[in-house]
Amino acid sequence: MAENSILYWGSGSPPCWRIMIALQEKKLHSMPQKLLSFDKQEHKLPEVLAINPRGQLPSFKHEGNVVNESLAACMYLESQFKSQGNPLIPDAPAEQALVYQRMFEVLTLHQKMADFAFYNWRVPEPERHETALARNKSALTTEFTLWEGYLGKMGPRSYIAGKNFTMADVVLFPQLALCVRFGLSQKRYPCLLDYYNRVKERPSIQTTWPPHWRETPPTMDPLKDV
Amino acid sequence: MAENSILYWGSGSPPCWRIMIALQEKKLHSMPQKLLSFDKQEHKLPEVLAINPRGQLPSFKHEGNVVNESLAACMYLESQFKSQGNPLIPDAPAEQALVYQRMFEVLTLHQKMADFAFYNWRVPEPERHETALARNKSALTTEFTLWEGYLGKMGPRSYIAGKNFTMADVVLFPQLALCVRFGLSQKRYPCLLDYYNRVKERPSIQTTWPPHWRETPPTMDPLKDV
Repeated sequence: MAENSILYWGSGSPPCWRIMIALQEKKLHSMPQKLLSFDKQEHKLPEVLAINPRGQLPSFKHEGNVVNESLAACMYLESQFKSQGNPLIPDAPAEQALVYQRMFEVLTLHQKMADFAFYNWRVPEPERHETALARNKSALTTEFTLWEGYLGKMGPRSYIAGKNFTMADVVLFPQLALCVRFGLSQKRYPCLLDYYNRVKERPSIQTTWPPHWRETPPTMDPLKDV
Repeated sequence: MAENSILYWGSGSPPCWRIMIALQEKKLHSMPQKLLSFDKQEHKLPEVLAINPRGQLPSFKHEGNVVNESLAACMYLESQFKSQGNPLIPDAPAEQALVYQRMFEVLTLHQKMADFAFYNWRVPEPERHETALARNKSALTTEFTLWEGYLGKMGPRSYIAGKNFTMADVVLFPQLALCVRFGLSQKRYPCLLDYYNRVKERPSIQTTWPPHWRETPPTMDPLKDV
């Protein structure tokens, strides 16, 4: 019989990592989790396709309820376990507005990062253009500068949406960590790197650190000059 | 003095329209709203940039709290006015899971639609390739087929996430309406078009219908063969 609750995940995928951090923060330590290999195309396994017609990771089912989109799963977990573990979405209007705003802005950071760093992977060779790559790089620089400014304005030792760790950090951190692994410059973005170095020590993040990142150094640094 | 609550919006923009529908559903009829022109670059006006460094529409401020990302604004409005107007996010786990899942999947539909329908607008002429356009068209067909299947499985007269109108419809409908305006085929996607024809009569949607859509017929139908 298929399990009623299961998280299928891939190592190093920011969307997967978000759900794993949220599970830790909400003290849902016993949620069944299964690590699958993107390289082996295990995200197309029948057991994944049974709950996710897109055949993507994460694929997540909680007590029979399927929520595969990472932000959807995070919202669901916070709502269903509001009083368990750490509160991740504040009730006060001003704080809540900023958490929601930053959570959703991360999707733009993700898009712009992928458009540049995964350009050769996403665009077939005959369709590649140096002009497009340069434009994507410029857009990504603008994006990082915006986030650097957000953190700069928050003051020292802040999280991305205030004095407390929130869902905005759950969503942002895995994306930023991938950027750092890809060579994001401490010199150009000191606030982002300071934030990264502080938040990475959090137990929910250490516990869920991508296993293949521990074992192997990065093989490319596409963001070193961004 | 700058207003404490204001929605800056552009006619025909699905993200803007989502917030306008949510405001109607939550009975926030007196929220100040200002229609701006994309053609005249009014989304780059100082009053917009003052609350949105991205210079995009929608830009939204409620009692001094800025939430520009459309899904963030929708979540914020539902949370802050939970018991006012129509409930848009159910509390019951199974229903809630599906609403969140569909809400966030709309972002993929949006992306794939834009990649195809706005290809010539987004990609400079020297960088265009028929192969890329064909690939984007195929991905969009797959996406529409998925949504057609979702509605087909829900049964007649359903909304996208169940028997009731929810935030998933608030997020989906404006995107689908743009697809219909761009020529989406009733023959190929009968469930999507039946849903569209039913939901468009809802008062919150009629009241907020894009003004320039009422006045001018569409000038292109890029989706007619998708």
